Amino acid sequence: MIVTDRISFQSKGYCDIVDITHEVAKRVVKAQIDSGAVTLFVAGSTAGITTIEFEPGLVSDFKEMWQQFAPDNISYNHNRAWDDDNGYSHVRASLLGASLVIPFQDKILALGTWQQVVLVDFDNRPRSRQVVVQIMGES
Amino acid sequence: MIVTDRISFQSKGYCDIVDITHEVAKRVVKAQIDSGAVTLFVAGSTAGITTIEFEPGLVSDFKEMWQQFAPDNISYNHNRAWDDDNGYSHVRASLLGASLVIPFQDKILALGTWQQVVLVDFDNRPRSRQVVVQIMGES
Amino acid sequence: MIVTDRISFQSKGYCDIVDITHEVAKRVVKAQIDSGAVTLFVAGSTAGITTIEFEPGLVSDFKEMWQQFAPDNISYNHNRAWDDDNGYSHVRASLLGASLVIPFQDKILALGTWQQVVLVDFDNRPRSRQVVVQIMGES
Repeated sequence: MIVTDRISFQSKGYCDIVDITHEVAKRVVKAQIDSGAVTLFVAGSTAGITTIEFEPGLVSDFKEMWQQFAPDNISYNHNRAWDDDNGYSHVRASLLGASLVIPFQDKILALGTWQQVVLVDFDNRPRSRQVVVQIMGES
Repeated sequence: MIVTDRISFQSKGYCDIVDITHEVAKRVVKAQIDSGAVTLFVAGSTAGITTIEFEPGLVSDFKEMWQQFAPDNISYNHNRAWDDDNGYSHVRASLLGASLVIPFQDKILALGTWQQVVLVDFDNRPRSRQVVVQIMGES
Repeated sequence: MIVTDRISFQSKGYCDIVDITHEVAKRVVKAQIDSGAVTLFVAGSTAGITTIEFEPGLVSDFKEMWQQFAPDNISYNHNRAWDDDNGYSHVRASLLGASLVIPFQDKILALGTWQQVVLVDFDNRPRSRQVVVQIMGES
C-alpha cells in the first residue's frame, strides 16, 4: 500500500532550516498503513532534507558550517553563466541530498527523541517549497 | 510489485558527473508500476549519487567544492597502505552517499524542472559503472 | 512484505566507524523476502550511516576529513547553550545523513566487493546504538 502526499510551506531562504517533523508524523498517522517507511523528497536543486536536533544553537552552528564549506561570497561559475547568484545554494543542496527514508512501526517514526526532520533551504530568496511524503507499507 | 534493473555506462573518473535522469525515467515508464519510489544505488566505494541542476557552470563548481573538501594532492593513509592513490575518491564517495530514493506518481518522477539525477565518479581513472534502479510500488 | 528488525551494539564514540555489513546481510537472509530493498536508519542526532571500503587507512582518512570539516576544538553555539560539548558531533551527523537504502536480489545486497555498510558515531562518548533494519519486498 502506498500513499503519496505533500507538505507545502513558505521558507525564508538563506539556509532557513524548517522543522517538518510534526507534518510528517501527522501524515503517517492519517495513512491506513501501520508499518513501513516514509520517503521524503524535495523537488528543486537548492534545498535538501536531513535530521538535526532542532534547537537554536545547533541551527546556527549548522548554518555556519555551510558558510565555511561553500561560502556565499566567493565566485561560482554558475553565477557568471546565469547571473542568479545562488551557485553556493546549488552545491550545498547537492551535497546534503534531496531524499531521506524513515521507517515506522505501529505508526511511530523511528526517530530519536532529539532528532527532528528538517528541510534546509539554501536558496538566496524566500521560496514556496513542497516536500513529497510517500508512505509505503502494510496495515 | 518490484522491478530491479540496472543502468550501465562508462565514466571518465576524476569527478566525472554523469546525468542519468533520462535512463532512470525510461525504466520507470517501462515498469508496470504507476505509483511508488525508485531507489538508485551505486555499487562501489568511489562513486556517489545525488541531484544537481546539470549545467556546465554548476558541474565545475561542484567539482571545485570537492577539491576544497578532500584535495587529490594531500596525503591519505589509504594511499600509503594500498598504493592506489585514490584515498580522496573514497572519502568523497562516503560523504556523498551511495543511495537516493525518488517517489513517482503516474510514472512521473517527483524531480524539479532543473533537478537532474547524477552519478559522481570520484575515482582516479575511467570506470565501468552500474547503477541499480529498483522500482517499487503499485499499478 | 515487510520485516522490521534492529541491530544493537556499543560504539566507542569519537568518530568510531562500525562495520555492520554482516549484521545487515544476516537479517536479509533470515527474512522471507527474496527481492527488495533494506532501509537502514539510525535514531539519534549524533551518528550517521554510509558505505566505505572498511580498511584501517581509509577509516583514519575519513576521521581526519571530519576533523577538517567540523573540528572538535572550535566554538559551537550548541555547546554554549547546553554545555554538552558535542556540537561538532551534531553538525557532522546532519551532514552525513541518518538513512541508507540498499536494494537486494535473491537475498544478495547490491554492494560492491570493497563496499561495507558502516555506522559513524560522532558523539563525544561511548554510546549504545540501535540501527533499524527494515526489509521490504516480495518472495
